[in-house]
Amino acid sequence: MDRKLYSLCGEDRKRHYSPHVWKVIMALEHKNLKYNLVPVSFGDITAIEDGRFTSVPVLRDGETVLGESYDIARYLDETYTDTPNLFDGKGAIALTRFVESYCKTVLHPSLATIAVMDMHNLMSPDDQAYFRAARERRFGMPLEAMAEGADGERAALPEKLAPVRDLLGTQDWLSGTTPAYADYTLFGTLQWCNVCTSNPLLERDDIVGSWFERCLDLFGGIGRDPTRSS
Amino acid sequence: MDRKLYSLCGEDRKRHYSPHVWKVIMALEHKNLKYNLVPVSFGDITAIEDGRFTSVPVLRDGETVLGESYDIARYLDETYTDTPNLFDGKGAIALTRFVESYCKTVLHPSLATIAVMDMHNLMSPDDQAYFRAARERRFGMPLEAMAEGADGERAALPEKLAPVRDLLGTQDWLSGTTPAYADYTLFGTLQWCNVCTSNPLLERDDIVGSWFERCLDLFGGIGRDPTRSS
Repeated sequence: MDRKLYSLCGEDRKRHYSPHVWKVIMALEHKNLKYNLVPVSFGDITAIEDGRFTSVPVLRDGETVLGESYDIARYLDETYTDTPNLFDGKGAIALTRFVESYCKTVLHPSLATIAVMDMHNLMSPDDQAYFRAARERRFGMPLEAMAEGADGERAALPEKLAPVRDLLGTQDWLSGTTPAYADYTLFGTLQWCNVCTSNPLLERDDIVGSWFERCLDLFGGIGRDPTRSS
Repeated sequence: MDRKLYSLCGEDRKRHYSPHVWKVIMALEHKNLKYNLVPVSFGDITAIEDGRFTSVPVLRDGETVLGESYDIARYLDETYTDTPNLFDGKGAIALTRFVESYCKTVLHPSLATIAVMDMHNLMSPDDQAYFRAARERRFGMPLEAMAEGADGERAALPEKLAPVRDLLGTQDWLSGTTPAYADYTLFGTLQWCNVCTSNPLLERDDIVGSWFERCLDLFGGIGRDPTRSS
Protein backbone atom coordinates (compact mmCIF):
# COMPACT_ATOMS: atom_id res chain seq x y z
CA MET A 1 0.00 0.00 0.00
CA ASP A 2 1.45 3.34 -1.01
CA ARG A 3 -0.49 5.56 1.35
CA LYS A 4 1.62 6.87 4.20
CA LEU A 5 0.83 9.39 6.90
CA TYR A 6 3.93 10.74 8.64
CA SER A 7 3.18 11.41 12.30
CA LEU A 8 5.18 13.04 15.08
CA CYS A 9 5.78 10.59 17.93
CA GLY A 10 7.26 10.29 21.35
CA GLU A 11 10.50 8.40 21.94
CA ASP A 12 8.42 5.20 22.26
CA ARG A 13 7.33 5.62 18.58
CA LYS A 14 3.77 4.95 19.77
CA ARG A 15 2.45 8.18 21.26
CA HIS A 16 1.23 10.19 18.29
CA TYR A 17 0.73 13.65 19.72
CA SER A 18 0.41 16.12 16.83
CA PRO A 19 -3.08 17.72 16.78
CA HIS A 20 -2.89 18.23 13.02
CA VAL A 21 -1.92 14.61 12.36
CA TRP A 22 -4.90 13.48 14.45
CA LYS A 23 -7.23 15.48 12.21
CA VAL A 24 -5.89 13.53 9.23
CA ILE A 25 -6.01 10.15 11.00
CA MET A 26 -9.73 10.75 11.65
CA ALA A 27 -10.24 12.01 8.08
CA LEU A 28 -8.63 8.87 6.57
CA GLU A 29 -10.72 6.63 8.83
CA HIS A 30 -13.90 8.56 7.94
CA LYS A 31 -13.11 8.05 4.24
CA ASN A 32 -12.47 4.30 4.82
CA LEU A 33 -8.96 4.64 3.42
CA LYS A 34 -6.16 2.33 4.55
CA TYR A 35 -2.78 3.87 5.38
CA ASN A 36 0.50 3.26 7.09
CA LEU A 37 1.16 5.54 10.03
CA VAL A 38 4.88 6.36 9.87
CA PRO A 39 6.33 7.62 13.15
CA VAL A 40 8.81 10.50 12.82
CA SER A 41 10.79 12.71 15.16
CA PHE A 42 11.31 16.48 14.71
CA GLY A 43 14.70 15.67 13.24
CA ASP A 44 13.16 13.37 10.61
CA ILE A 45 10.67 15.90 9.19
CA THR A 46 12.99 17.66 6.74
CA ALA A 47 13.98 14.29 5.32
CA ILE A 48 10.37 13.25 4.58
CA GLU A 49 9.65 12.62 0.90
CA ASP A 50 11.15 15.47 -1.17
CA GLY A 51 12.36 17.34 1.90
CA ARG A 52 10.16 20.39 1.40
CA PHE A 53 8.13 20.02 4.61
CA THR A 54 8.92 21.62 7.95
CA SER A 55 5.93 20.21 9.82
CA VAL A 56 3.58 17.23 9.86
CA PRO A 57 1.13 15.94 8.78
CA VAL A 58 2.56 14.90 5.46
CA LEU A 59 0.51 12.45 3.41
CA ARG A 60 1.80 10.39 0.50
CA ASP A 61 -1.11 9.05 -1.51
CA GLY A 62 0.26 7.19 -4.52
CA GLU A 63 2.04 9.88 -6.56
CA THR A 64 0.57 12.77 -4.56
CA VAL A 65 2.43 14.22 -1.57
CA LEU A 66 0.92 17.04 0.45
CA GLY A 67 0.92 18.73 3.86
CA GLU A 68 -1.50 20.87 5.92
CA SER A 69 -4.39 18.98 7.51
CA TYR A 70 -7.20 21.07 6.02
CA ASP A 71 -5.72 20.82 2.50
CA ILE A 72 -5.37 17.06 2.94
CA ALA A 73 -9.02 16.78 4.02
CA ARG A 74 -10.14 18.80 0.96
CA TYR A 75 -7.97 16.60 -1.28
CA LEU A 76 -9.43 13.40 0.19
CA ASP A 77 -13.02 14.55 -0.41
CA GLU A 78 -12.23 15.65 -3.96
CA THR A 79 -10.29 12.48 -4.81
CA TYR A 80 -12.41 9.81 -3.10
CA THR A 81 -15.98 10.73 -3.93
CA ASP A 82 -17.45 7.27 -3.30
CA THR A 83 -16.81 7.26 0.47
CA PRO A 84 -18.48 9.51 3.11
CA ASN A 85 -17.90 13.26 2.78
CA LEU A 86 -15.75 15.15 5.25
CA PHE A 87 -17.53 18.35 4.25
CA ASP A 88 -21.29 18.19 3.67
CA GLY A 89 -21.64 20.90 1.03
CA LYS A 90 -19.74 24.01 -0.03
CA GLY A 91 -20.84 26.01 3.01
CA ALA A 92 -19.31 23.40 5.30
CA ILE A 93 -15.94 23.75 3.53
CA ALA A 94 -15.94 27.46 4.39
CA LEU A 95 -17.40 27.22 7.89
CA THR A 96 -15.17 24.36 9.05
CA ARG A 97 -12.42 26.95 8.71
CA PHE A 98 -14.09 28.95 11.47
CA VAL A 99 -13.79 25.93 13.76
CA GLU A 100 -10.12 25.74 12.72
CA SER A 101 -9.62 29.45 13.44
CA TYR A 102 -11.29 29.06 16.84
CA CYS A 103 -9.04 26.11 17.73
CA LYS A 104 -5.95 27.95 16.54
CA THR A 105 -6.55 31.29 18.26
CA VAL A 106 -8.51 30.31 21.39
CA LEU A 107 -7.44 26.76 22.33
CA HIS A 108 -3.91 26.23 20.96
CA PRO A 109 -2.19 28.87 23.12
CA SER A 110 -3.79 27.39 26.27
CA LEU A 111 -3.05 23.80 25.35
CA ALA A 112 0.55 24.62 24.42
CA THR A 113 1.03 25.84 27.98
CA ILE A 114 -0.90 23.00 29.64
CA ALA A 115 0.96 20.25 27.75
CA VAL A 116 4.44 21.77 27.51
CA MET A 117 6.30 19.66 30.07
CA ASP A 118 4.44 16.42 29.31
CA MET A 119 5.23 16.89 25.60
CA HIS A 120 8.85 17.49 26.41
CA ASN A 121 9.04 14.45 28.66
CA LEU A 122 7.73 11.98 26.09
CA MET A 123 10.27 13.03 23.41
CA SER A 124 13.65 11.51 22.56
CA PRO A 125 16.66 13.46 23.90
CA ASP A 126 17.35 14.98 20.44
CA ASP A 127 13.73 16.11 20.06
CA GLN A 128 13.77 17.50 23.60
CA ALA A 129 16.75 19.69 22.75
CA TYR A 130 15.13 20.91 19.51
CA PHE A 131 11.76 21.52 21.19
CA ARG A 132 13.26 23.36 24.15
CA ALA A 133 15.33 25.66 21.96
CA ALA A 134 12.43 26.42 19.59
CA ARG A 135 9.85 27.07 22.34
CA GLU A 136 12.20 29.09 24.51
CA ARG A 137 13.06 31.26 21.52
CA ARG A 138 9.38 31.74 20.62
CA PHE A 139 8.10 32.45 24.14
CA GLY A 140 11.20 34.12 25.57
CA MET A 141 11.25 32.00 28.73
CA PRO A 142 12.37 28.55 29.94
CA LEU A 143 9.89 25.71 29.39
CA GLU A 144 9.59 25.36 33.15
CA ALA A 145 8.51 29.01 33.49
CA MET A 146 5.97 28.53 30.69
CA ALA A 147 4.60 25.50 32.54
CA GLU A 148 3.87 27.63 35.58
CA GLY A 149 0.90 29.00 33.64
CA ALA A 150 -0.60 25.53 33.16
CA ASP A 151 -2.95 25.50 36.17
CA GLY A 152 -4.33 28.92 35.21
CA GLU A 153 -4.91 27.77 31.64
CA ARG A 154 -6.68 24.63 32.84
CA ALA A 155 -8.94 26.75 35.02
CA ALA A 156 -9.75 29.06 32.07
CA LEU A 157 -10.46 26.21 29.64
CA PRO A 158 -14.16 25.65 30.45
CA GLU A 159 -14.89 29.29 29.56
CA LYS A 160 -12.86 29.02 26.34
CA LEU A 161 -14.96 25.98 25.41
CA ALA A 162 -18.23 27.87 26.02
CA PRO A 163 -19.14 28.14 22.29
CA VAL A 164 -18.67 24.37 21.87
CA ARG A 165 -20.68 23.62 25.02
CA ASP A 166 -23.49 25.86 23.79
CA LEU A 167 -23.51 24.19 20.35
CA LEU A 168 -23.52 20.65 21.78
CA GLY A 169 -26.62 21.63 23.76
CA THR A 170 -28.52 21.72 20.45
CA GLN A 171 -26.91 18.96 18.36
CA ASP A 172 -24.81 15.81 18.95
CA TRP A 173 -21.86 16.73 16.74
CA LEU A 174 -20.34 20.00 15.57
CA SER A 175 -21.19 18.85 12.04
CA GLY A 176 -24.84 18.08 12.94
CA THR A 177 -26.32 14.59 13.33
CA THR A 178 -23.12 12.73 12.36
CA PRO A 179 -19.43 13.61 12.86
CA ALA A 180 -17.38 15.15 10.05
CA TYR A 181 -14.24 17.19 9.57
CA ALA A 182 -15.32 20.06 11.85
CA ASP A 183 -15.52 17.52 14.69
CA TYR A 184 -12.13 16.04 13.81
CA THR A 185 -10.63 19.55 13.81
CA LEU A 186 -11.63 20.14 17.41
CA PHE A 187 -10.99 16.52 18.38
CA GLY A 188 -7.41 16.62 17.06
CA THR A 189 -6.75 19.80 19.01
CA LEU A 190 -7.92 18.29 22.31
CA GLN A 191 -6.45 14.86 21.55
CA TRP A 192 -2.99 16.48 21.53
CA CYS A 193 -3.27 17.02 25.31
CA ASN A 194 -5.10 13.76 25.85
CA VAL A 195 -2.14 11.83 24.38
CA CYS A 196 0.51 13.81 26.24
CA THR A 197 -0.90 14.30 29.71
CA SER A 198 -2.28 11.82 32.24
CA ASN A 199 -4.46 14.49 33.86
CA PRO A 200 -7.71 14.63 31.82
CA LEU A 201 -8.61 18.02 30.31
CA LEU A 202 -12.34 17.44 30.32
CA GLU A 203 -14.80 15.92 32.77
CA ARG A 204 -16.59 12.94 31.23
CA ASP A 205 -19.95 14.13 32.54
CA ASP A 206 -19.46 17.53 30.88
CA ILE A 207 -21.22 17.79 27.52
CA VAL A 208 -17.89 18.53 25.79
CA GLY A 209 -16.17 15.67 27.64
CA SER A 210 -18.95 13.31 26.58
CA TRP A 211 -18.60 14.42 22.92
CA PHE A 212 -14.82 13.85 23.19
CA GLU A 213 -15.36 10.31 24.54
CA ARG A 214 -17.70 9.61 21.60
CA CYS A 215 -14.95 10.82 19.24
CA LEU A 216 -12.48 8.46 20.94
CA ASP A 217 -14.91 5.59 20.29
CA LEU A 218 -15.19 6.30 16.54
CA PHE A 219 -13.62 3.94 13.98
CA GLY A 220 -13.07 1.09 16.39
CA GLY A 221 -11.57 3.35 19.04
CA ILE A 222 -8.62 4.54 16.93
CA GLY A 223 -8.30 7.56 19.24
CA ARG A 224 -7.47 5.23 22.09
CA ASP A 225 -4.86 3.25 20.14
CA PRO A 226 -3.50 4.85 16.97
CA THR A 227 -0.83 2.17 16.46
CA ARG A 228 -3.53 -0.39 15.65
CA SER A 229 -3.94 1.06 12.12
CA SER A 230 -0.31 0.78 11.04
CA MET B 1 -48.16 42.55 1.32
CA ASP B 2 -48.68 40.24 4.25
CA ARG B 3 -45.08 39.77 5.26
CA LYS B 4 -44.22 41.65 8.44
CA LEU B 5 -41.08 41.66 10.54
CA TYR B 6 -41.59 43.04 14.02
CA SER B 7 -38.49 44.91 15.17
CA LEU B 8 -37.50 46.46 18.49
CA CYS B 9 -36.89 50.20 18.08
CA GLY B 10 -35.79 53.27 19.93
CA GLU B 11 -38.26 55.98 20.91
CA ASP B 12 -37.74 57.55 17.46
CA ARG B 13 -39.22 54.34 15.87
CA LYS B 14 -36.26 54.38 13.48
CA ARG B 15 -33.31 52.93 15.32
CA HIS B 16 -33.70 49.16 14.98
CA TYR B 17 -31.26 47.78 17.50
CA SER B 18 -32.07 44.11 18.08
CA PRO B 19 -29.18 41.89 16.92
CA HIS B 20 -31.56 39.02 16.21
CA VAL B 21 -33.89 41.18 14.11
CA TRP B 22 -30.90 42.34 12.07
CA LYS B 23 -30.06 38.72 11.22
CA VAL B 24 -33.58 38.34 9.81
CA ILE B 25 -33.50 41.68 7.94
CA MET B 26 -30.35 40.49 6.16
CA ALA B 27 -31.87 37.04 5.55
CA LEU B 28 -35.02 38.53 3.95
CA GLU B 29 -32.91 40.81 1.76
CA HIS B 30 -30.65 37.89 0.76
CA LYS B 31 -33.77 35.94 -0.27
CA ASN B 32 -35.08 38.91 -2.27
CA LEU B 33 -38.29 38.93 -0.21
CA LYS B 34 -40.24 42.14 0.37
CA TYR B 35 -41.48 42.87 3.90
CA ASN B 36 -42.82 45.57 6.16
CA LEU B 37 -40.58 46.39 9.09
CA VAL B 38 -42.95 47.01 12.00
CA PRO B 39 -41.36 48.98 14.86
CA VAL B 40 -42.29 47.76 18.35
CA SER B 41 -41.35 48.64 21.92
CA PHE B 42 -40.72 46.12 24.71
CA GLY B 43 -44.27 46.76 25.91
CA ASP B 44 -45.70 45.89 22.48
CA ILE B 45 -44.08 42.45 22.18
CA THR B 46 -46.64 40.42 24.13
CA ALA B 47 -49.39 41.91 21.96
CA ILE B 48 -47.77 40.83 18.67
CA GLU B 49 -49.89 38.43 16.60
CA ASP B 50 -51.27 35.69 18.86
CA GLY B 51 -49.48 37.04 21.94
CA ARG B 52 -47.24 34.00 22.46
CA PHE B 53 -43.91 35.78 21.91
CA THR B 54 -41.73 37.34 24.60
CA SER B 55 -38.95 38.52 22.28
CA VAL B 56 -38.36 39.64 18.71
CA PRO B 57 -37.84 38.89 15.88
CA VAL B 58 -41.32 37.74 15.02
CA LEU B 59 -42.08 37.18 11.35
CA ARG B 60 -45.54 36.91 9.84
CA ASP B 61 -45.30 35.39 6.38
CA GLY B 62 -48.82 34.94 5.02
CA GLU B 63 -50.43 32.44 7.38
CA THR B 64 -47.16 31.48 9.08
CA VAL B 65 -45.99 33.25 12.22
CA LEU B 66 -42.70 32.34 13.85
CA GLY B 67 -39.91 33.63 16.10
CA GLU B 68 -36.19 32.87 16.67
CA SER B 69 -33.86 34.20 14.00
CA TYR B 70 -32.18 30.88 13.15
CA ASP B 71 -35.56 29.10 12.83
CA ILE B 72 -36.79 31.92 10.59
CA ALA B 73 -33.70 31.61 8.36
CA ARG B 74 -34.22 27.82 8.07
CA TYR B 75 -37.89 28.41 7.24
CA LEU B 76 -37.06 30.96 4.54
CA ASP B 77 -34.60 28.59 2.82
CA GLU B 78 -37.06 25.70 2.96
CA THR B 79 -40.00 27.79 1.76
CA TYR B 80 -38.38 29.94 -0.92
CA THR B 81 -36.16 27.57 -2.86
CA ASP B 82 -35.94 29.70 -6.01
CA THR B 83 -33.94 32.53 -4.40
CA PRO B 84 -30.33 32.37 -3.09
CA ASN B 85 -29.66 29.95 -0.22
CA LEU B 86 -28.88 31.22 3.27
CA PHE B 87 -27.21 27.87 4.01
CA ASP B 88 -25.08 26.30 1.29
CA GLY B 89 -25.64 22.62 2.09
CA LYS B 90 -26.55 20.55 5.14
CA GLY B 91 -23.16 21.01 6.78
CA ALA B 92 -23.60 24.77 6.70
CA ILE B 93 -26.93 24.49 8.54
CA ALA B 94 -25.12 22.72 11.40
CA LEU B 95 -21.93 24.80 11.39
CA THR B 96 -23.68 28.18 11.23
CA ARG B 97 -24.91 27.24 14.70
CA PHE B 98 -21.28 27.31 15.87
CA VAL B 99 -21.03 30.93 14.70
CA GLU B 100 -24.28 31.58 16.61
CA SER B 101 -22.89 29.88 19.75
CA TYR B 102 -19.68 31.92 19.46
CA CYS B 103 -21.64 35.17 19.15
CA LYS B 104 -23.89 34.24 22.07
CA THR B 105 -21.22 33.09 24.52
CA VAL B 106 -18.19 35.21 23.57
CA LEU B 107 -19.52 38.48 22.11
CA HIS B 108 -22.98 39.08 23.60
CA PRO B 109 -21.85 39.48 27.24
CA SER B 110 -19.24 42.05 26.15
CA LEU B 111 -21.55 43.96 23.87
CA ALA B 112 -24.33 44.01 26.49
CA THR B 113 -21.92 45.87 28.76
CA ILE B 114 -20.52 48.16 26.07
CA ALA B 115 -23.94 49.23 24.78
CA VAL B 116 -25.96 49.29 28.00
CA MET B 117 -26.27 53.04 28.56
CA ASP B 118 -26.61 53.93 24.87
CA MET B 119 -29.38 51.33 24.51
CA HIS B 120 -31.14 52.74 27.54
CA ASN B 121 -30.86 56.30 26.28
CA LEU B 122 -32.48 55.64 22.91
CA MET B 123 -35.59 53.99 24.42
CA SER B 124 -38.95 55.50 25.30
CA PRO B 125 -39.46 56.20 29.03
CA ASP B 126 -41.64 53.07 29.43
CA ASP B 127 -39.04 50.86 27.75
CA GLN B 128 -36.31 52.44 29.84
CA ALA B 129 -38.13 51.47 33.03
CA TYR B 130 -38.69 47.90 31.79
CA PHE B 131 -35.10 47.53 30.56
CA ARG B 132 -33.59 48.92 33.75
CA ALA B 133 -35.63 46.63 35.98
CA ALA B 134 -34.92 43.53 33.86
CA ARG B 135 -31.17 44.15 33.52
CA GLU B 136 -30.66 45.17 37.12
CA ARG B 137 -32.42 41.97 38.23
CA ARG B 138 -30.32 39.83 35.87
CA PHE B 139 -26.94 41.39 36.65
CA GLY B 140 -27.56 42.35 40.27
CA MET B 141 -26.29 45.91 39.86
CA PRO B 142 -27.45 49.32 38.60
CA LEU B 143 -27.09 49.93 34.84
CA GLU B 144 -24.59 52.66 35.61
CA ALA B 145 -22.37 50.20 37.54
CA MET B 146 -22.60 47.70 34.68
CA ALA B 147 -21.53 50.47 32.27
CA GLU B 148 -18.32 50.97 34.23
CA GLY B 149 -17.07 47.75 32.64
CA ALA B 150 -17.58 49.11 29.11
CA ASP B 151 -14.03 50.41 28.53
CA GLY B 152 -12.54 47.11 29.70
CA GLU B 153 -14.86 45.15 27.40
CA ARG B 154 -13.95 47.40 24.45
CA ALA B 155 -10.27 46.78 25.14
CA ALA B 156 -10.85 42.99 25.29
CA LEU B 157 -12.92 42.88 22.08
CA PRO B 158 -10.06 42.53 19.55
CA GLU B 159 -8.90 39.35 21.31
CA LYS B 160 -12.45 37.99 21.43
CA LEU B 161 -12.67 38.56 17.66
CA ALA B 162 -9.40 36.66 17.05
CA PRO B 163 -11.11 33.60 15.47
CA VAL B 164 -12.98 35.87 13.02
CA ARG B 165 -9.83 37.83 12.22
CA ASP B 166 -7.95 34.62 11.54
CA LEU B 167 -10.73 33.29 9.29
CA LEU B 168 -11.00 36.51 7.28
CA GLY B 169 -7.28 36.21 6.59
CA THR B 170 -8.11 33.22 4.37
CA GLN B 171 -11.50 34.07 2.84
CA ASP B 172 -13.62 37.18 2.20
CA TRP B 173 -16.74 36.07 4.04
CA LEU B 174 -17.43 33.71 6.93
CA SER B 175 -19.51 31.70 4.46
CA GLY B 176 -16.71 31.57 1.84
CA THR B 177 -16.64 33.56 -1.40
CA THR B 178 -20.08 35.16 -0.92
CA PRO B 179 -21.97 36.20 2.22
CA ALA B 180 -24.66 33.98 3.72
CA TYR B 181 -26.42 33.43 7.03
CA ALA B 182 -23.23 32.81 9.04
CA ASP B 183 -22.13 36.32 8.05
CA TYR B 184 -25.51 37.81 8.95
CA THR B 185 -25.34 36.09 12.34
CA LEU B 186 -22.11 37.87 13.26
CA PHE B 187 -23.15 41.05 11.47
CA GLY B 188 -26.42 41.29 13.45
CA THR B 189 -24.51 40.84 16.69
CA LEU B 190 -22.09 43.69 15.93
CA GLN B 191 -24.77 45.85 14.26
CA TRP B 192 -26.57 45.99 17.62
CA CYS B 193 -23.75 48.15 19.01
CA ASN B 194 -23.28 49.98 15.74
CA VAL B 195 -26.91 51.21 15.84
CA CYS B 196 -26.81 52.14 19.54
CA THR B 197 -23.43 53.76 20.05
CA SER B 198 -21.71 56.59 18.26
CA ASN B 199 -18.26 55.30 19.20
CA PRO B 200 -17.31 52.67 16.54
CA LEU B 201 -16.53 49.19 17.82
CA LEU B 202 -14.18 48.30 15.00
CA GLU B 203 -11.44 50.10 13.14
CA ARG B 204 -12.24 50.34 9.43
CA ASP B 205 -8.69 49.34 8.51
CA ASP B 206 -8.94 46.20 10.63
CA ILE B 207 -9.82 43.10 8.61
CA VAL B 208 -12.97 42.57 10.73
CA GLY B 209 -13.91 46.26 10.44
CA SER B 210 -13.51 46.07 6.68
CA TRP B 211 -15.76 42.96 6.51
CA PHE B 212 -18.34 44.80 8.65
CA GLU B 213 -18.31 47.78 6.27
CA ARG B 214 -18.86 45.39 3.35
CA CYS B 215 -21.84 43.93 5.22
CA LEU B 216 -23.24 47.44 5.72
CA ASP B 217 -22.99 47.98 1.95
CA LEU B 218 -24.99 44.84 1.08
CA PHE B 219 -28.53 45.09 -0.34
CA GLY B 220 -28.31 48.78 -1.21
CA GLY B 221 -26.83 49.68 2.17
CA ILE B 222 -29.81 48.49 4.24
CA GLY B 223 -27.51 48.26 7.27
CA ARG B 224 -27.02 52.01 7.08
CA ASP B 225 -30.73 52.80 6.79
CA PRO B 226 -33.16 50.06 7.76
CA THR B 227 -36.21 52.33 7.48
CA ARG B 228 -35.76 52.47 3.72
CA SER B 229 -37.26 48.99 3.32
CA SER B 230 -40.53 49.66 5.12
